[in-house]
Amino acid sequence: MTTTPEHDDLAPVLRALRDGLPRTRAQLARELGLSRSTMSTRVDDLLALGLVAPTGDAGSTGGRPASTFAFTPGARIVAGVDLGATHARIVLTDLAAHEIADHREEVCIASGPGPVLDRVVEVVHTLLAEAGRDLADLAGVGVGLPGPVDHASGRPTKPPIMPGWDGHDVAGHLHAGLGSAPVLVDNDVNLMALAEHSSALPQVEHLLFVKVATGIGAGIIADGRVHRGAQGSAGDLGHVAVPGGEPVPCTCGNTGCLEAVAGAAAVAARLREHGVEARTSDDVVALVRGGNIVATQAVRDAGRAVGAVLASCVSLLNPSAIVVGGSMARVGEHLVAGIREVVYARPLPLATQNLRVTTSRIGAHAGALGGAWLAVENAFDTPGLLTRGTAGAADALSPVAPLPAAQVG
Amino acid sequence: MTTTPEHDDLAPVLRALRDGLPRTRAQLARELGLSRSTMSTRVDDLLALGLVAPTGDAGSTGGRPASTFAFTPGARIVAGVDLGATHARIVLTDLAAHEIADHREEVCIASGPGPVLDRVVEVVHTLLAEAGRDLADLAGVGVGLPGPVDHASGRPTKPPIMPGWDGHDVAGHLHAGLGSAPVLVDNDVNLMALAEHSSALPQVEHLLFVKVATGIGAGIIADGRVHRGAQGSAGDLGHVAVPGGEPVPCTCGNTGCLEAVAGAAAVAARLREHGVEARTSDDVVALVRGGNIVATQAVRDAGRAVGAVLASCVSLLNPSAIVVGGSMARVGEHLVAGIREVVYARPLPLATQNLRVTTSRIGAHAGALGGAWLAVENAFDTPGLLTRGTAGAADALSPVAPLPAAQVG
Repeated sequence: MTTTPEHDDLAPVLRALRDGLPRTRAQLARELGLSRSTMSTRVDDLLALGLVAPTGDAGSTGGRPASTFAFTPGARIVAGVDLGATHARIVLTDLAAHEIADHREEVCIASGPGPVLDRVVEVVHTLLAEAGRDLADLAGVGVGLPGPVDHASGRPTKPPIMPGWDGHDVAGHLHAGLGSAPVLVDNDVNLMALAEHSSALPQVEHLLFVKVATGIGAGIIADGRVHRGAQGSAGDLGHVAVPGGEPVPCTCGNTGCLEAVAGAAAVAARLREHGVEARTSDDVVALVRGGNIVATQAVRDAGRAVGAVLASCVSLLNPSAIVVGGSMARVGEHLVAGIREVVYARPLPLATQNLRVTTSRIGAHAGALGGAWLAVENAFDTPGLLTRGTAGAADALSPVAPLPAAQVG
Repeated sequence: MTTTPEHDDLAPVLRALRDGLPRTRAQLARELGLSRSTMSTRVDDLLALGLVAPTGDAGSTGGRPASTFAFTPGARIVAGVDLGATHARIVLTDLAAHEIADHREEVCIASGPGPVLDRVVEVVHTLLAEAGRDLADLAGVGVGLPGPVDHASGRPTKPPIMPGWDGHDVAGHLHAGLGSAPVLVDNDVNLMALAEHSSALPQVEHLLFVKVATGIGAGIIADGRVHRGAQGSAGDLGHVAVPGGEPVPCTCGNTGCLEAVAGAAAVAARLREHGVEARTSDDVVALVRGGNIVATQAVRDAGRAVGAVLASCVSLLNPSAIVVGGSMARVGEHLVAGIREVVYARPLPLATQNLRVTTSRIGAHAGALGGAWLAVENAFDTPGLLTRGTAGAADALSPVAPLPAAQVG
């Protein structure tokens, strides 16, 4: 089975069924303004493709009961890949972004794109095999990188902690090992924001996800979409000047940057000045959880500095939720308490009256899960992608059609 | 002629023709993937409605030359209304947002919505009559208010300088005098940003418009659309803390707010401290233009403070253009020079490498012109709106159908 104009027509039907609610052919026809005979054909096509399954009989109003159908999220799968400075997390999910497989391992991003991406390909193959699926089922791959990514080309742009990756064709590299499924590449914090929005807070159209770790960055959801900016560097809060902050020198050459004041390394350095041994965010988290007062105060201060910058972001963007994640968020409420102190004090009441500030509910999965969401959204938005072949059909293993430049990188 | 399902089908054809380029029926059919006979009918309908006109014969490739058609922007008009603290500017434009009429008068917004909006209705009627058009030609009205506006309802939300306007049904009020055309209400700075994007910089998808006057605010264009935020208060920069700024007390109850440091009143107050008499932005502009060194230095300092806040905005949003407008922008390059100094110094290079910082090219028309654009975009996005009646048809004078809640407020 190959892509046909008829199958492009299935996309609106699939999108309508995405909510998972069962419907009859007649209900679907009414909803989409199509004739019942046209809709009948389309439902038959979707049944044949395994994308829709019968769910039983609708309540009868006299006469023969009408059969209902619902979307089958497990008909295809996607992979979400989150690459950090020292780890790779790879998940497989169905088309509702429910996790089917989850794998995490230590990987050194600084070893360069070759070994890292080859390992990603290997893990995806292994996870597919373990789940009893194959490449023909794969409807897309979403990859998060710990640095700026040019969204149009999907290539990393001068990423500071990723030597050898500048301009690398990440999507092309993965295509070589993973076949024809579209590969989409983004900044990891953008994907965390996408996961928080899509999985945890789907009703929140304006959301700011803030990752506080060694680096500090934000992912922006505006009108329900990721805001990436002109060069893909939006959300780069690490080197914003903290209002009222100390002029601490920063690695970037400026002083008073948020990262130099409130990043994990800055907090650990301050603890050492007070005679408390700490190097990493893990050390800081362990100290706070162990009740160390100096560490707790330092984390609260860091929260206030993050809050001072976020207060400006709230005035500028007027989000209704701020979600705090990253390794430092594991200290519990102390970081968020410091953030709330300043965020609620500064902007005008209209901007904060409905604002929630919380810690991430998704935690360490957020990056990979966001990658899966990116691939899922792309699958529903690309005509013919989900309907180009039946699950397991051998022809889906070979490239079907040239992919748009923005996808293949 | 009334709205029919057939006329909804004209919307994609109209949108394709919006670029103004002449096309043949065959070219249009190919472009939209429709049969030539279907397209022929649709072009005939658009000709009958006056929305499209013949432009001549296309170059023949042998045989009978094919006739070409192009969009007629003057087939319908829209009104753009900009209400400030002490003025109203009202323009009529065609569907390409080219001005047909322009009117400005002194109006005191504090006299309340009744007298102000009644006067707007009166002026629109006068301008229509002078242009030889009537209400049946009016495809929409876009209104900018100098305060926060709830976008979903179109009502002002606790606007500080607009006593009596809180929650007022501005759209409903104007409908009573202007008939069935949709009325869309927004914050004035959002409309200025929209005008800069649509009229001056259509290729710039990420833009920040900053109004520097007594108040200071920004309008955000993200991915080509106005970003309003959860409550419509996005861009409210006046009370953002200036990094590294003095803790000057502000009317809002906080200290160090941008408006208290760099607003026109703050600059005038500083001039008076130096023995230079100034009260308003007009006074400051006149002093700077007259070569007063104290005033020039104060404006440059104000620019630096605005720049310090904008530097954070650049890191957060990664725009490719900042456009500076408002009454203080009339001082010439001194304000923008101060802004550039800081904006280019602070964020990481990726965010500023393609960033332009300029003064507004549209100037005092921007608010009203933005209102016109808002109405034009809505007209093209609302099926049946442009095709519900021929120009001048009497039935278009009476309300045709209930308008969506977001439009009628």
